[in-house]
Amino acid sequence: MMEAIGLIDGKLIGLREKVIEIEDRGYQFGDGVYEVTRIYNGRPFALKLHMERLFRSLAGLRIPATYSFEELAGFHQLLIEKSGVVDGTVYLQITRGLAPRGHAFPDEATPRLTMSIQPMAPPQFSRANGVKAIFVPDERWLRCDIKTINLLGNILAKQRAKEAGVYEAVQVRQKEPASNQSLDGVVTEGSSSNFFAVQDGKLWTHPANHLILTGISRTVILQELAPKLGISVVEKPFDVAFAKNAQEAFVASTTSEVTPIIALDGAPVGNGKVGPVSCRLMEAFSGFVAKECGIPR
Amino acid sequence: MMEAIGLIDGKLIGLREKVIEIEDRGYQFGDGVYEVTRIYNGRPFALKLHMERLFRSLAGLRIPATYSFEELAGFHQLLIEKSGVVDGTVYLQITRGLAPRGHAFPDEATPRLTMSIQPMAPPQFSRANGVKAIFVPDERWLRCDIKTINLLGNILAKQRAKEAGVYEAVQVRQKEPASNQSLDGVVTEGSSSNFFAVQDGKLWTHPANHLILTGISRTVILQELAPKLGISVVEKPFDVAFAKNAQEAFVASTTSEVTPIIALDGAPVGNGKVGPVSCRLMEAFSGFVAKECGIPR
Repeated sequence: MMEAIGLIDGKLIGLREKVIEIEDRGYQFGDGVYEVTRIYNGRPFALKLHMERLFRSLAGLRIPATYSFEELAGFHQLLIEKSGVVDGTVYLQITRGLAPRGHAFPDEATPRLTMSIQPMAPPQFSRANGVKAIFVPDERWLRCDIKTINLLGNILAKQRAKEAGVYEAVQVRQKEPASNQSLDGVVTEGSSSNFFAVQDGKLWTHPANHLILTGISRTVILQELAPKLGISVVEKPFDVAFAKNAQEAFVASTTSEVTPIIALDGAPVGNGKVGPVSCRLMEAFSGFVAKECGIPR
Repeated sequence: MMEAIGLIDGKLIGLREKVIEIEDRGYQFGDGVYEVTRIYNGRPFALKLHMERLFRSLAGLRIPATYSFEELAGFHQLLIEKSGVVDGTVYLQITRGLAPRGHAFPDEATPRLTMSIQPMAPPQFSRANGVKAIFVPDERWLRCDIKTINLLGNILAKQRAKEAGVYEAVQVRQKEPASNQSLDGVVTEGSSSNFFAVQDGKLWTHPANHLILTGISRTVILQELAPKLGISVVEKPFDVAFAKNAQEAFVASTTSEVTPIIALDGAPVGNGKVGPVSCRLMEAFSGFVAKECGIPR
């Protein structure tokens, strides 16, 4: 197998090369943003949407955008060609750069771009059979709308899922910050996915505000797929009881696509099987990907 | 001037050497913890307290503690000797280490230690004259009790202080997470310090829970200095109005020691001058440091 490759500021590197100083603000503060873009059939999926969100994240942290969309698209292409990856993901991160340590923004720093590419097969098994999830308290900060590398809240949630033997941890923002272990509050999103519930044929999901990241798959579902399928969307907060009483539930993300959830906290969702709305959206999602990435069907 | 030095896993390096891979979890997730220890008279101040907190932070993130207190103390000594720094700070960080990217804890990863040392004079001017501060919304996550390198909330708060031309941003945890820009809530702490208010001769500060980091200077004040000076301490939540009506206010931290706040949001605190309780605590703090670090007085 070829050594995994990475990229720093446009230059190809071995993924395990030492290329970062300890005073890169990414390393000492998590002061940076990232994107993960799916590669299907050797082509990046929804790259424009990913890079637009990247620019929004940079603006959110006031990190200057030093690379254009065209340059970033070129780096994706370079990694795909050099790695030979046909189905996989490209990881891209931009930090505020190297500066003597201090909390406030440094007067002079050059943002630093790092990227890598890895193969990944489509999640066929989990899509077809559904997965299980648990609810966990949402302990993250209040700017979840920015896709930053401050990911400890997400990590601790995902670790809870791993230890519970389930696919995803769905986070619940407690009503009061004083009760940080409560599940009495609003269902926000998964640790690395958006959460959807189907109730009376309508698709419910948390509104796009500072409490969630607006996933690219979420955007595709809400703006492309649901309207075409005639599925009504309700972007309103709902609680754990509502989610548990839903007829169907699923998570959506770049790596999970549309993945049905058949059990929440050990109790079946609906009849405990993958439901019809989830099926239609999964199928539509695959169709959309195929069209965008030139996959023969 | 000598080139600044750093240290990685016990080995001395130049501070600007490239020693980190892009898949170090510190770089991609901010998955790590840190300490900043003050050096006075060539000796680390309260090193035992700092390293005990480090071990608590590691336990909080379930990063294995692979270095003993004695080893870490030795690395501090090494940096002091090799740099010739007499008054300064030692920065120490431990990340979960290198692993292929994925949110949950990796099955195999070796925690990575990095350190650096920099000179710093005592904050005499700001202590003697007092400083100004503003209130800002507390946007951080709900495990502020762990001293992690997920510092974006602190960075954005400190940047607001810098742009307002004041010394510190004092954070206010809003009552409801939905209103993330509200100042209607509890005063937690500064962006890199603990906050104290003096009311009727008593010292008020936020209780030690998940909403603040228990600073080492806070611990010294509460456990050593206030009892000796006969100052009563109240560890209870209070709001912005209470803080603005206080007779005195100050922040405390490793780099700020005890630094009086003479204005909050542009309005004078008390009579707008450094008050008597702050003065006594500043003096007591300096005396404690002198005794601990063998400084002749």
